[in-house]
Amino acid sequence: MAQRLDARDASFPQAFAELLSAKREISEDVDQAVRAIIDDVVARGDQALIDYTRRFDALELDAGTLQISDAEIDAAEARCPKEALNALALAKERIEVYHRAQRPQDSMSTDALGVTLGWRWTALESVGIYVPGGRASYPSSVLMNAVPAKVAGVPRVTMVVPTPRGETNPLVLAAARLAGVDEVFRIGGAQAVAALAYGTASVKPVAKIVGPGNAYVAAAKRRVFGQVGIDMIAGPSEVLVIADGHANPDWIAADLLAQAEHDPVAQAILVTDSAGLADAVEKAVERQLETLPKAEIARASWQDYGAIILVERLDDAIPLVDRLAPEHLEIETENADELAAKVRNAGAIFLGSHTPEAIGDYVGGPNHVLPTARSARFSSGLGVLDFMKRTSILKCDADALRALGPAAIALGRSEGLEGHARSVAIRLNL
Amino acid sequence: MAQRLDARDASFPQAFAELLSAKREISEDVDQAVRAIIDDVVARGDQALIDYTRRFDALELDAGTLQISDAEIDAAEARCPKEALNALALAKERIEVYHRAQRPQDSMSTDALGVTLGWRWTALESVGIYVPGGRASYPSSVLMNAVPAKVAGVPRVTMVVPTPRGETNPLVLAAARLAGVDEVFRIGGAQAVAALAYGTASVKPVAKIVGPGNAYVAAAKRRVFGQVGIDMIAGPSEVLVIADGHANPDWIAADLLAQAEHDPVAQAILVTDSAGLADAVEKAVERQLETLPKAEIARASWQDYGAIILVERLDDAIPLVDRLAPEHLEIETENADELAAKVRNAGAIFLGSHTPEAIGDYVGGPNHVLPTARSARFSSGLGVLDFMKRTSILKCDADALRALGPAAIALGRSEGLEGHARSVAIRLNL
Repeated sequence: MAQRLDARDASFPQAFAELLSAKREISEDVDQAVRAIIDDVVARGDQALIDYTRRFDALELDAGTLQISDAEIDAAEARCPKEALNALALAKERIEVYHRAQRPQDSMSTDALGVTLGWRWTALESVGIYVPGGRASYPSSVLMNAVPAKVAGVPRVTMVVPTPRGETNPLVLAAARLAGVDEVFRIGGAQAVAALAYGTASVKPVAKIVGPGNAYVAAAKRRVFGQVGIDMIAGPSEVLVIADGHANPDWIAADLLAQAEHDPVAQAILVTDSAGLADAVEKAVERQLETLPKAEIARASWQDYGAIILVERLDDAIPLVDRLAPEHLEIETENADELAAKVRNAGAIFLGSHTPEAIGDYVGGPNHVLPTARSARFSSGLGVLDFMKRTSILKCDADALRALGPAAIALGRSEGLEGHARSVAIRLNL
Repeated sequence: MAQRLDARDASFPQAFAELLSAKREISEDVDQAVRAIIDDVVARGDQALIDYTRRFDALELDAGTLQISDAEIDAAEARCPKEALNALALAKERIEVYHRAQRPQDSMSTDALGVTLGWRWTALESVGIYVPGGRASYPSSVLMNAVPAKVAGVPRVTMVVPTPRGETNPLVLAAARLAGVDEVFRIGGAQAVAALAYGTASVKPVAKIVGPGNAYVAAAKRRVFGQVGIDMIAGPSEVLVIADGHANPDWIAADLLAQAEHDPVAQAILVTDSAGLADAVEKAVERQLETLPKAEIARASWQDYGAIILVERLDDAIPLVDRLAPEHLEIETENADELAAKVRNAGAIFLGSHTPEAIGDYVGGPNHVLPTARSARFSSGLGVLDFMKRTSILKCDADALRALGPAAIALGRSEGLEGHARSVAIRLNL
């Protein structure tokens, strides 16, 4: 059973602060190991990849088999159930449409002084997508990472996916093809991140690495940040559901468990103004757990990190939401739109009782790569902008330089940068 | 004298690769020290800040003097030269106008299936700006960091600036006020970063930390990334100038030196198709160095990291630019616009002979916080988007869920996430 909090209790602020600071990250100290692996890949290239793949994935590769061939992808695709392929195609189409609308505008204009200025967006030249092997190998995540990169116009998208003992997930390869991934390597872990960042004979380096991974992958991404760009370091998934007394407790319970089944350290929280709903949801969770295949994981998550918070009025949920900054926020209340408008910090909002978060995970259109662990306070879900960058452009003519030059000279001198001042003054004969 | 390369030489690819990989970062290994400082600030709060400020800045503070008061800022402003204040005001106005145009659009629409979807941008709730003390304490950087935050709508902008032996730069405080900074603390180093990330009794925690700093600050930002957002880890500054035989060698030399005077590890590179210009610039640099106040720094930068690269045709400069991905790119050629259109990777482009980069440093309008060390391959200069985040929004009605649900169920099951599938199925009585 999840913990029950009441926002009207004197002990609530303390209990809520503890909920906020609960360490759900698995903080294995893998940094030294990761550093050695990266150095080794930089030094020995493909051979290091081959050695680590033998050691960690129990798979014997050579330079010729590091990459997964087109023929292998054909064969994988042929093994996929038709229904799943069709669902993937629908998902890809909707994700593409949603992300196309995110393509940014360039800007260029000339102001009253004669200064022409603005900016230009360009796609990254190359991107690496990390896809975990084993339990967390999700074809939907391949789409969510690769489609926005391709919508942005990235010409080379490289995917890496470990294949322990040679096992591949055929739907992952089908998703890669559907999304337009250009090349796929059967490598994983810190060694794959190192290869993408620094390149080897077989793996061309990329400009940015995205995608989730285990503690080694996260530590490796953190280490290569600067050499290449990275996306967020993803933490365990989380949902916060706001519901009122009209909500269907069975539906709410199903949504909480859909989150909890991800990971024993996933977090599902219900905030409600109805003690009746709270009780009913609690019972429904227990009942649904009886038949859920991943009940063991979901139960651990619900017991250790789940919470039901009672508030006096639904509006009281808003400051709690903003402090938690949940990855996913479901609002299943009568005034869902109004409440949503008051929220500052959330990765994604799902409105009304017919929008279970699982729709957004797969076929809604928005990205399911979202900020976790309270990082929705400062970051956004993955999108087209993550695969583009902006170059500012400035052009003065002689008159414009005459107008702006003296101020630049004054500021340069005030900062002790006489060379800056002179680069302007020399053009104005000052 | 800088090194001279000729793109037509057989040895050029190797020499250019060495130029690319030249380590200009000061890679002091300060990580362990920084970790201890952060832990100490988390444990001891204000008292740790007071102790480190005594030790590193030779300044005795107490809880009442950690913050710089409004009266002190008034007094600082009164000490600033009028000319510099006016120049700052012009700069602020132009930066504000430029960044206002960057404010992103929200999007919300309903598609043919009845799915309402889109996104909403919101400002971060709070931002910390790190401003270095001593040599690199630049009022212009205060504007460049704080103005976009305020344009984004950030309600609380907190600045930290170390004041060694109590010395403050009055223009830095004046710039903070002009930009609308809400509070200023006289702390610096890893301890200031820790305070901004985790909070102390006096310093409220922020959602994101931006601004340049030394190796300790950079290491601290890297460590607190995740707890808060951070901007790029800034490296030494750099300029690449493309010029043809029509360019004025004295102007070009002044631009190269304006970059070189920043730092002995700054980098200034000229790419030209004119051997005559190359020779003339080389001579002009030596001549101008004779009277430049920061000649020692500029000479070290020019000798150790400067380069003049001769190319057969100006178009041959483009792939070199894209590999170097310079922070600043000046194009002083007859067809400057055409060349600029072919560039993929550059932080900022300055077009024509009347746009010395120093204009962009101060009063052009675009941001001068730009990606260094080749990171323009994957990132942008600072802007309004760095102070906002996007929340995706999804809303299905019963019909829309009926249309999309089966595909979500199929994908959930194919990923082994039965709980995901059930959260949809339960609403469709499937």
